[in-house]
Amino acid sequence: MQLRARDLGVVPGTLPTGPLNAITDVPGVLVGHTTLDDGADLHTGVTAIVPTPSAGAGTSATAWSPQTALPAAVAVGNGYGKLVGSTQVDELGRLETPILLTGTLSVFRAADALLTYLLDRDSAATSLNPVVGETNDGYLSDIRRRPITEQHVLDALTTASSGLPAEGCVGAGTGTAALGFKAGIGTSSRRVPTRTSGTAPASGTVGALVQSNFSGLLRVLGTPIPAPPSPSEPTGNSCMIVLATDLPLDARQLGRIARRAIFALGLIGSDYAPGSGDYAIAFSTTPSAPEPFLEGNLRPVFQATLDAVEEALLNSLVTARTTTGFRGRTRYAVPHELVAAAGLTARTARA
Amino acid sequence: MQLRARDLGVVPGTLPTGPLNAITDVPGVLVGHTTLDDGADLHTGVTAIVPTPSAGAGTSATAWSPQTALPAAVAVGNGYGKLVGSTQVDELGRLETPILLTGTLSVFRAADALLTYLLDRDSAATSLNPVVGETNDGYLSDIRRRPITEQHVLDALTTASSGLPAEGCVGAGTGTAALGFKAGIGTSSRRVPTRTSGTAPASGTVGALVQSNFSGLLRVLGTPIPAPPSPSEPTGNSCMIVLATDLPLDARQLGRIARRAIFALGLIGSDYAPGSGDYAIAFSTTPSAPEPFLEGNLRPVFQATLDAVEEALLNSLVTARTTTGFRGRTRYAVPHELVAAAGLTARTARA
Amino acid sequence: MQLRARDLGVVPGTLPTGPLNAITDVPGVLVGHTTLDDGADLHTGVTAIVPTPSAGAGTSATAWSPQTALPAAVAVGNGYGKLVGSTQVDELGRLETPILLTGTLSVFRAADALLTYLLDRDSAATSLNPVVGETNDGYLSDIRRRPITEQHVLDALTTASSGLPAEGCVGAGTGTAALGFKAGIGTSSRRVPTRTSGTAPASGTVGALVQSNFSGLLRVLGTPIPAPPSPSEPTGNSCMIVLATDLPLDARQLGRIARRAIFALGLIGSDYAPGSGDYAIAFSTTPSAPEPFLEGNLRPVFQATLDAVEEALLNSLVTARTTTGFRGRTRYAVPHELVAAAGLTARTARA
Amino acid sequence: MQLRARDLGVVPGTLPTGPLNAITDVPGVLVGHTTLDDGADLHTGVTAIVPTPSAGAGTSATAWSPQTALPAAVAVGNGYGKLVGSTQVDELGRLETPILLTGTLSVFRAADALLTYLLDRDSAATSLNPVVGETNDGYLSDIRRRPITEQHVLDALTTASSGLPAEGCVGAGTGTAALGFKAGIGTSSRRVPTRTSGTAPASGTVGALVQSNFSGLLRVLGTPIPAPPSPSEPTGNSCMIVLATDLPLDARQLGRIARRAIFALGLIGSDYAPGSGDYAIAFSTTPSAPEPFLEGNLRPVFQATLDAVEEALLNSLVTARTTTGFRGRTRYAVPHELVAAAGLTARTARA
Repeated sequence: MQLRARDLGVVPGTLPTGPLNAITDVPGVLVGHTTLDDGADLHTGVTAIVPTPSAGAGTSATAWSPQTALPAAVAVGNGYGKLVGSTQVDELGRLETPILLTGTLSVFRAADALLTYLLDRDSAATSLNPVVGETNDGYLSDIRRRPITEQHVLDALTTASSGLPAEGCVGAGTGTAALGFKAGIGTSSRRVPTRTSGTAPASGTVGALVQSNFSGLLRVLGTPIPAPPSPSEPTGNSCMIVLATDLPLDARQLGRIARRAIFALGLIGSDYAPGSGDYAIAFSTTPSAPEPFLEGNLRPVFQATLDAVEEALLNSLVTARTTTGFRGRTRYAVPHELVAAAGLTARTARA
Repeated sequence: MQLRARDLGVVPGTLPTGPLNAITDVPGVLVGHTTLDDGADLHTGVTAIVPTPSAGAGTSATAWSPQTALPAAVAVGNGYGKLVGSTQVDELGRLETPILLTGTLSVFRAADALLTYLLDRDSAATSLNPVVGETNDGYLSDIRRRPITEQHVLDALTTASSGLPAEGCVGAGTGTAALGFKAGIGTSSRRVPTRTSGTAPASGTVGALVQSNFSGLLRVLGTPIPAPPSPSEPTGNSCMIVLATDLPLDARQLGRIARRAIFALGLIGSDYAPGSGDYAIAFSTTPSAPEPFLEGNLRPVFQATLDAVEEALLNSLVTARTTTGFRGRTRYAVPHELVAAAGLTARTARA
Repeated sequence: MQLRARDLGVVPGTLPTGPLNAITDVPGVLVGHTTLDDGADLHTGVTAIVPTPSAGAGTSATAWSPQTALPAAVAVGNGYGKLVGSTQVDELGRLETPILLTGTLSVFRAADALLTYLLDRDSAATSLNPVVGETNDGYLSDIRRRPITEQHVLDALTTASSGLPAEGCVGAGTGTAALGFKAGIGTSSRRVPTRTSGTAPASGTVGALVQSNFSGLLRVLGTPIPAPPSPSEPTGNSCMIVLATDLPLDARQLGRIARRAIFALGLIGSDYAPGSGDYAIAFSTTPSAPEPFLEGNLRPVFQATLDAVEEALLNSLVTARTTTGFRGRTRYAVPHELVAAAGLTARTARA
Repeated sequence: MQLRARDLGVVPGTLPTGPLNAITDVPGVLVGHTTLDDGADLHTGVTAIVPTPSAGAGTSATAWSPQTALPAAVAVGNGYGKLVGSTQVDELGRLETPILLTGTLSVFRAADALLTYLLDRDSAATSLNPVVGETNDGYLSDIRRRPITEQHVLDALTTASSGLPAEGCVGAGTGTAALGFKAGIGTSSRRVPTRTSGTAPASGTVGALVQSNFSGLLRVLGTPIPAPPSPSEPTGNSCMIVLATDLPLDARQLGRIARRAIFALGLIGSDYAPGSGDYAIAFSTTPSAPEPFLEGNLRPVFQATLDAVEEALLNSLVTARTTTGFRGRTRYAVPHELVAAAGLTARTARA
């Protein structure tokens, strides 16, 4: 059982989490990983986020459907990245496929493999818009080998499940690092009240999943935790953030929360470096609702987004393990005792 | 020898063309095609536009160099398309690679093949931003087979040359259609005066190359030429437009001319349909100049862009041949006599 | 009774118009003008487009209501202009106020006067986002005098009505010129079928109103009509386009049609010059609908937009009168016989 | 002598400041304020940032010149605001006028007064693009009175000087509040090394000036400082950030640093609320340079931006005084001892 940030006493914000404190708390959202770790030159992988039709409480969605078209939006914090699929999401405001994350130079093989997956499931499709994000894991992995195969991608997609996703050095996070420490995949969620005009109060979930891989000085709820000096630094990095919600937000509103996901990077110390391709993509699993989601009710959704992304980023660090990879380079895990101490400091300040 | 629009008496605007009336009139710009035409189900291909370092008159550039980074910008007329590489061009304002055009479902295989080409030529590269556009040629070609291989792409790149590019049913235009007629690749150029502040008058070239594949009613210099009715219509289409210039425009200015390329689609009758992914990418082969290009001197450059794109589109139609492809579907070439008549009408109206 | 383009036999497209062939065919949309013409140095004015709550057929809306918040979007063809209010429309996707058009240097006085109008009608308002567009009428009017007063604006707003708006040299079009001819305000509309998923077929209206003021070579349904040479040319110009519809489009979809309005400028010969601030703003009077408007049903809406804007632009020219203004400069009206001849040419070509 | 954040031991980052630790450290940048404070219902004002031609070290620029056109860019963090002038800055990448800040409903009167200032200084101008930002100071000031007059604006412009600007409850910050405390105007600067290709190392300055007025939980170098509860909260707010630099950045690069200014809001605890119109505008006083500023040298410029904005925001709080205004509402100044304690905590953590 991996310890997570919350297990160390580090809790961003005051909103409650969903049952798993994960993006999979949003009904119908599945996550799968394929991890490539040969103990030497390869530390990379694929992570798939698979939205399935959200059929309401009690229904268990189990697979992507070709009919799935969900409201979606992309926010570009720093466009130094190779996100596949963004212009069509901008134009149509919708996500038509699962989302993949992987290493930079494998992004097109992953996108092509996603086509294979989709063509197999939709015999009439002749135009598809895969969404695939990437970060550069070339510090710990031999990125020029482009090791991701079609089978790796299909495995991540078909094994995706609704449980708590593995975090840390898995999938697309196997070789990534953030704020000087080993990082990887992290996830978190928040419950928020939701009201549409004229209807009874209800609640919904905002879930975040991150592939963290950026520079800066780690801050845990405000307390700085410097990383050990590194003999050489990667010149490229990035952060991909995926947001899911069952709130009936439209594409424009999803764009607003996606921008908040970018803003959350600063909360744990990103220096928003020129070479860091920072992107967020947000989607809603509720494409139609009896009434539109009122703009005036977005405030807690924005806060949920900031908090869930901050905690997902912290989880991506806390759950990662020290890793030695390509050319013998090592990234160290953040010491849990320092994280716990920062959590204590924050609780003391609040009290 | 293929007849082109100008050979039929159809001449948009009054600015002179370059020697070839082609994008390759911009020094250092090469074009290559790989054409797949099995006479039956496959009518598709790859077109490569390869910018090489522009070393001034008299120098013959022969290949892409890993050091090439050129000012560039993308304009999205309608984002219903899968253009690879756009966010990084937006952020950094530069083109780092050759540009490829191909069919929709082959776009990621083409992008990955471009990585192969680039990695072979730059042993240190770990992050690359291929730019690959596409249109849907699924009406005449069995698009779901994703027939483009790495070798097809490498062939287009390595055979690219500075002569007059083949037009019509070649490369990425092998299977496309526009305004109800068979279309394909077309190119054109215009010479424009250029002045930078304080320097002597000079001139430069704006070149356009198009992969035309969109709906509407053909207008040749204003005269409508309806296409024969078609038993079934493609639901998706697009137009990719590539602009090159040796004028020292920066990325922002290139964005301004790229938007004019989109506007030019209407001049020959595009209906700017919801499903048509219309994109332009513009680059300059002159990344640095002693003085910036003055905003006040852009007017003839805009006009050159409108005229060159209009003529490139006309050339893509005039040079295409009637083609029967996938499932026995046929697209007819536009009758040259109707085009010539429209040209005569226009000359009469001017006189 | 002013002759309009259609009266001269010039009819873009095949879709039917609304009863007035005007933006006021969209139920609840009112238009008012204040015209300043002293026969000498002043030829300017204000035009107000006032959306009122659309309460269904048979209800007559008569005034703007502070509760009005309508889905809206802005498209920027060329941002060389001073459109007030655009960033908030982008963010929230809604229009909260009437729209004003006026001359360039009067735009802020007009916006402030609109605040007066709004504050008078909403005693609780402390934040308001007026939308005011402009074009430069300084060739025929002494623009530096900033002659528009608060009362001029209030008059345009309070006299706005649902009838056929005056066209040509009125309101914000009093001093404008297009394609070398005197131009001004023009309007047009189209009826389009509309279907939302699962509901019965119905129809809706797209209306356009333009303040035309740009350079290029007039084309009437394809036939060029050159303007007489002018001793001096204005260096700045622009075109403001307002689109209204009662179709239940959301802000993203309205952005898509607003972009088509920009594309329509080329159809009558705009050269999209560097100094021309070309903007479109689109709004829907139907902020909520039982079902979303399906993307797949947009095609006729796009065509309606292209046609309505083309005809509104033609109307702005056909209805304008030769005007001599500031410093004795003259802009000539387009000769109706040339327009009629172009119409005949087009009908002959179709037959 | 007002105490500033640094005087309380609070120092974001490690880069050195300019001599004044203010935006006026950028040569040629002047700041002026007009403050309206009647001790009762009015707490508002105008702040002018006046860029003058930067004539190199040793030259004292004293006034805006009509020939001034500086590279510039706007970043929109949250477009719920009324920033005047943004689309033209986007299109042309330049700032043609001084920048004004004021209260929301006075923004158009301020823009019109800026026209007066500009027309007086340029007898040929017929098109001008004033840039005016605003935040809503209606909690402490009777905003519906629109109290800003032309003279107030002219006074701010003509008294602008190159010394340390007044901070806190002055000019456009007279009535604003941030993070629950009284806030206002703040400024700061950083020195950064700069290299253009092939030239000797040199250094430049990034200066920031903020009008702070947003919600969230104050964090001083990580330590939270909750504000006293308030009986009623403003529904609208905003933050305007102005960045100046003498580094020869082009418009695209200025856009990149402007986005970092938005990111810096989170560092002191902004909750990026839906109703907060958060904008940054960045300009360079060096419109042309012998060589372009290399993208690879931006990293310290980004860090300088983050740090200068964070410190300017802190200064806007630390220098503000407890204020009672409209309807007897009170905003309290942040206790200096809490700020100093947070600074001590941060120094201890570093040691």
